[in-house]
Amino acid sequence: MTDPRPIGIFDSGVGGLTVASRVGEILPSEHIVYFGDTARVPYGTKSKETVTRFSVENVEFLMRHDVKLIIVACNTASSLGLEFLKRCFRVPILGVIEPGARAAARYTRTNRIGVIGTSATIASGAYEKAIAKLRSGKYIFSQSCPLFVPIVEEGWLDTRITRDIASIYLKGLRAKNIDTLILGCTHYPLLKNVIGEVMGKSVRLVDSAEEVAREARGILEASGLLNNSGRPGKQKFFVSDEPPRFIKMAKRFLRRRIKCVKADGIAR
Amino acid sequence: MTDPRPIGIFDSGVGGLTVASRVGEILPSEHIVYFGDTARVPYGTKSKETVTRFSVENVEFLMRHDVKLIIVACNTASSLGLEFLKRCFRVPILGVIEPGARAAARYTRTNRIGVIGTSATIASGAYEKAIAKLRSGKYIFSQSCPLFVPIVEEGWLDTRITRDIASIYLKGLRAKNIDTLILGCTHYPLLKNVIGEVMGKSVRLVDSAEEVAREARGILEASGLLNNSGRPGKQKFFVSDEPPRFIKMAKRFLRRRIKCVKADGIAR
Repeated sequence: MTDPRPIGIFDSGVGGLTVASRVGEILPSEHIVYFGDTARVPYGTKSKETVTRFSVENVEFLMRHDVKLIIVACNTASSLGLEFLKRCFRVPILGVIEPGARAAARYTRTNRIGVIGTSATIASGAYEKAIAKLRSGKYIFSQSCPLFVPIVEEGWLDTRITRDIASIYLKGLRAKNIDTLILGCTHYPLLKNVIGEVMGKSVRLVDSAEEVAREARGILEASGLLNNSGRPGKQKFFVSDEPPRFIKMAKRFLRRRIKCVKADGIAR
Repeated sequence: MTDPRPIGIFDSGVGGLTVASRVGEILPSEHIVYFGDTARVPYGTKSKETVTRFSVENVEFLMRHDVKLIIVACNTASSLGLEFLKRCFRVPILGVIEPGARAAARYTRTNRIGVIGTSATIASGAYEKAIAKLRSGKYIFSQSCPLFVPIVEEGWLDTRITRDIASIYLKGLRAKNIDTLILGCTHYPLLKNVIGEVMGKSVRLVDSAEEVAREARGILEASGLLNNSGRPGKQKFFVSDEPPRFIKMAKRFLRRRIKCVKADGIAR
């Protein structure tokens, strides 16, 4: 049995490509339809009501591509809009928060976990809440790192300034003796080297993108929805505005050139 | 004769507050209605079509407050949408590009002018075109500085990292022996100290916010539209999303606490 329908992934912009990339590695035969809401990026500074409304429109767009599972590859939309999306739509929908939280709770030995993310993600306390739900007696320490996204988009992935900025942001977390650090923003895996260097080898970095890709595989397996064709899956990319900029950024995230189309009738 | 109607100012977000601030200094009796399109910020990564559509909606919002003059306090909207706005609406509408360009052309002695701005503003060539229209035989050198906006919003106005970033961005312009540098983004006046330090005292910085405020005064005077009440003008602030974040940022831009209301029926 094989289900050839694609997996849908949406993000406020380009960051979710780290998720698309991990899904491609972990589920190489699955087709992917990616939607980046580049007309309305970023979500992190917007209200719950606004982010939820945008997310519903994004899911509707993906549904028109007959997707069998949807990944909300955006921390803000995952923390603010996921519950509502799950109530609205019948297709399985995964966010990035819970897989990251579950992985961190599994990995930690000292029960001291750090979380970094955008201001919105950190202010939402989404990872704390998700870890608390696992009722595990963990200590969570969080820190927002607002300059990490623009510095990734500038392409300064491994420069002295990047290290200086990381040292400032991560100073407090280093003092907390955490052994696990959740990269709570889809852009951050591109800064893994620098963050790892600043935190030291004793701290395990949790890449939410990788964790959500693993959970997606689990769900598809359990529901008999895997694509077992054995052929490499195709990836389609749509944005709500400015495909050229997305294509340029995508090169940094996927290390290859992609085609990308402006989606009709969204973000009007 | 006195005209008590307010001046309307819009920006994609908080940056236009540098314009509101200068208007308040130069035209202290004028009332101001400010609209920040925080639900759809930033404009700099969006297409001309999208930015123009948003700008029309923003002007319509300001018109409902019976404004007598509108300032487009956003470099992207000024470069992409201004011509269309002027054709659509009868109220005088000023952008920030031309006043900055005119001032630079007036100030320079060596005819070598630099421009810094967001990627979108620099890619648009708006300042080059505006200066070229003055048919003045000037050499223009431009540089995008994508991290300046996030670093201002992070509040790192005068840190070592800010100076390091400025040194990297401005290195090329320093080698060009410019004597005038246009701050082609409304956030940049907050980095005046650092930019001035890196460029050296021989380079005059042109603050577009100040220049557009002066031109606004000129137009109101010439058309008999000044508010001559002699009383301090009132300022009202509206945003399309998340007033608390705007209020927090506004403190940095205006050095005082403001009230701010979510505008109805915009950015839906």
